[in-house]
Amino acid sequence: MTSTSDTPAPEGLLAALTGYEAALMANDLPALDSAFAPGPATLRGDEKALLVGHDAISSFRSARGGVARRRIGQVEVRELGPHLALVVSVSEFATGGRGLQSQLWRRTDGTWRIEAAHVTSRPAPLDRTIWRAVGDPLMAATGSGPLDGLTVAVKDLYAVPGQPVGAGNPTWLREAAVETEAAAALALLLSAGAAMRGIARTDEFAYSIAGRNEHYGTPPNGVTPLAIPGGSSNGSASAVALGLADIGLGTDTGGSVRVPASYQGLWGLRTTHGLVPRDGLLALAPSFDTVGWLTRDGSVLCRVAGVCLPGVSASEPPAEFLVVEELLSCAEPATVAAFESCLADVGIPVRRVRLAEYGIPEPAALRETFRLVQAGEAWDVRGEWIEAHPGALGPTIAARFAAARDVDPGTRAAAVDRLPRDRDAIRKMVGDGIVALPTVPGPAPLLRADAGALARTRSATLAMTSLAGIGGLPALSVPALTVAGAAGQPTAVGICLVGAAGTDRGLVAAATELFDAA
Amino acid sequence: MTSTSDTPAPEGLLAALTGYEAALMANDLPALDSAFAPGPATLRGDEKALLVGHDAISSFRSARGGVARRRIGQVEVRELGPHLALVVSVSEFATGGRGLQSQLWRRTDGTWRIEAAHVTSRPAPLDRTIWRAVGDPLMAATGSGPLDGLTVAVKDLYAVPGQPVGAGNPTWLREAAVETEAAAALALLLSAGAAMRGIARTDEFAYSIAGRNEHYGTPPNGVTPLAIPGGSSNGSASAVALGLADIGLGTDTGGSVRVPASYQGLWGLRTTHGLVPRDGLLALAPSFDTVGWLTRDGSVLCRVAGVCLPGVSASEPPAEFLVVEELLSCAEPATVAAFESCLADVGIPVRRVRLAEYGIPEPAALRETFRLVQAGEAWDVRGEWIEAHPGALGPTIAARFAAARDVDPGTRAAAVDRLPRDRDAIRKMVGDGIVALPTVPGPAPLLRADAGALARTRSATLAMTSLAGIGGLPALSVPALTVAGAAGQPTAVGICLVGAAGTDRGLVAAATELFDAA
Repeated sequence: MTSTSDTPAPEGLLAALTGYEAALMANDLPALDSAFAPGPATLRGDEKALLVGHDAISSFRSARGGVARRRIGQVEVRELGPHLALVVSVSEFATGGRGLQSQLWRRTDGTWRIEAAHVTSRPAPLDRTIWRAVGDPLMAATGSGPLDGLTVAVKDLYAVPGQPVGAGNPTWLREAAVETEAAAALALLLSAGAAMRGIARTDEFAYSIAGRNEHYGTPPNGVTPLAIPGGSSNGSASAVALGLADIGLGTDTGGSVRVPASYQGLWGLRTTHGLVPRDGLLALAPSFDTVGWLTRDGSVLCRVAGVCLPGVSASEPPAEFLVVEELLSCAEPATVAAFESCLADVGIPVRRVRLAEYGIPEPAALRETFRLVQAGEAWDVRGEWIEAHPGALGPTIAARFAAARDVDPGTRAAAVDRLPRDRDAIRKMVGDGIVALPTVPGPAPLLRADAGALARTRSATLAMTSLAGIGGLPALSVPALTVAGAAGQPTAVGICLVGAAGTDRGLVAAATELFDAA
Repeated sequence: MTSTSDTPAPEGLLAALTGYEAALMANDLPALDSAFAPGPATLRGDEKALLVGHDAISSFRSARGGVARRRIGQVEVRELGPHLALVVSVSEFATGGRGLQSQLWRRTDGTWRIEAAHVTSRPAPLDRTIWRAVGDPLMAATGSGPLDGLTVAVKDLYAVPGQPVGAGNPTWLREAAVETEAAAALALLLSAGAAMRGIARTDEFAYSIAGRNEHYGTPPNGVTPLAIPGGSSNGSASAVALGLADIGLGTDTGGSVRVPASYQGLWGLRTTHGLVPRDGLLALAPSFDTVGWLTRDGSVLCRVAGVCLPGVSASEPPAEFLVVEELLSCAEPATVAAFESCLADVGIPVRRVRLAEYGIPEPAALRETFRLVQAGEAWDVRGEWIEAHPGALGPTIAARFAAARDVDPGTRAAAVDRLPRDRDAIRKMVGDGIVALPTVPGPAPLLRADAGALARTRSATLAMTSLAGIGGLPALSVPALTVAGAAGQPTAVGICLVGAAGTDRGLVAAATELFDAA
């Protein structure tokens, strides 16, 4: 250790620092727990989150693992009292790079403990939970237009020239051929002036709405640090929420744009099925797969829609919103309350309807039809590869594909039969209007939520998202609600507007008029 | 601001925080200066450096510019005494992303001031001073071998399939065609198991040894935070020094591998001219251009040499080192002292020679011959493009190319005539032995060094590096010296070993035996 200070550090303090460093490298959890002062006021912050209270810090540590081998270089000690000192030190890693940590140490009953710590980790080349590759830009615009100066995070399902498609799975990536042409949806953005920032992570083969990739880790939720990001367009969403890109190019089969948009306070559009060409896009379930975008504000989404979608942008405010009772009942009470209050503030008349009036099955039945058709198609397009590569999938997605494989053919056929009938009924209900609902049941679940709670959330979410999925309709999530999150903090939730097929541009324009504060 | 604390903050503290935030966004330097406590004990640290003393902090600020628009979200205040408090706060940026700052505030004469600050900036997608593009990996290995598991930072002069070559200049990059095949030197690494981490920045067209790119900024020096990184393989060197890649693929024409290696405590090999194929490498001055590599330790460089170079690795320790008096006199006294002491420690006999004994011109004359031939060739290969793109170059490199353009043809011809004679004389002096010298005159200059001092350093450096350049000889910089840097701190300096043409592998092997502690 080197220090610019002439005064010696208080007795025992540097030994405590050295011991703490050793415990970090050994990931000695009991030693680390006892190095931090007990109680609810203890702090630990880094680039991801500011944790308050010894328990929160302890639970963070138990999930992290230790730190790489390093030594303390420069160290600055400032005595603040007979038993209180600030220590700021630079850690030098054995494999290169430096970190910085500031610690407030207090000696109680002869023992030095940390009351507050601020940690800056050594820089990584890129955040591999968000990106597979990133550049300045990774690919230049091919034209100039309304998207000049904007950057795009491209979900790793789209063809990017010079790169294979990775689909969130390292084995797939290793075998994939290098693409020569940009996917159609990417080419549209590039030709309108957007540059490609990077290739963003996805849940494996997009077959999840949680946003947790078991190979590459979970990207940070850009607005609620301790919550899951939502997926499967998780990398694109996190990149946009964190300001690392302006546009997230995603896909939405069962909610993969709408869910991360809601969880991360973004605008997210699932487009009308078939409206944006899917050339160069790896399929999950072709009957439902759509191109979608995520942005931080409505005006940018309007520009994207203007470039990528046919139809008109100019829109009268809607005469009314349809609110579907059965869909509301899938959401959490606090979210429903925020939703109703938001609608009242907006001031557009609300017409309340029931699915039953239109001969549309209950949300749970819609979800089951959706699930069966999706599962069948997912196995059709990916099953052969999966069977040829045992062990290649992470456990969660492997189980989902296994369930898809095991769908009874008769049951699937019945669901396929129901699909057009349900689609027609949904389209009849929507008519030329706009259905409004909370995008998801409530705030993003916490990272530490248990599997049962996550499964229930997933189930309720898909019951809500299946309406647009089966209807093949555009669905726009707008970050208009604020609800107390699982940790009590105010948390973003989306309001979802589902419009008639092909009205995507008008939907975005109307919503921007109504909701965009930017 | 939201806080988990129930006790109110001390009077005036949050107002001081709010005022400080406003001053940051306005880049109000006087207000920022007065927000920090005067004196030499005040601290400010971030991921780049830990600054000590009000003056160092003030001078950092004046070079930085303000911060982007943001608001304070979560804030935690811990009172440490009647006039002392720790404030930890999360800043939420208007365009997405969060930062974290911890500040130790003390009230003196009624005014709150910061005695220590720790800042974690909001994450960027990539460090654009180091990288043009980076991936996990950006390009997979094409084979398996001794470099399995290692990553390469590739200087942006080498062809990378699917990407244009950028050469450190945005105009060139915009016009460059997308490459279809990997440069030969890159292909060698990939086929031996290395994956490509990314495309690393270079000084424009590699025509500098400072490492400051006027378009993309100056990459951090990985071991001496306030010093220049050295160039032109600056991005590759910083990436390796910071642990972001294991191998830096660079080029060395006049010192572009050796200089950043010395400045950043790395191993750096300039190979024998012509020994490694230059297919797919953008030329600067073909008579001197060579492929080179940078690593953190000798053993990795040995593996690279084993894969990319012909010849044998096994090497007896050299019977003696040749030390050239005139080259030593180009270096700073402290560096010479460290060099002599290092040689004494190593224990290999030293034979002292003079250039004059071998009919070799003085270092300054060698440098001038080198400069003239390099300038002529640089203008030959790049002049037409530069004339067609007025304003495309940064001012420093524009001036260097302008000087190249203005070299008198007769003067150039005379230098070209001298070149083979000087080369032969140098090769005769080196024989089968190894010349040892400090790689550069001394520690890396500080970022704040004035232009005159930098020019003198450049001049002395090129006088030392021209021996291998004109000789076409392999030159290995080994991070074996420690010298007091410009700020007084212990700083890495390289020792350079120049061997006979084609002995590159043996040179690396011998040096690793003698010097590698890893």
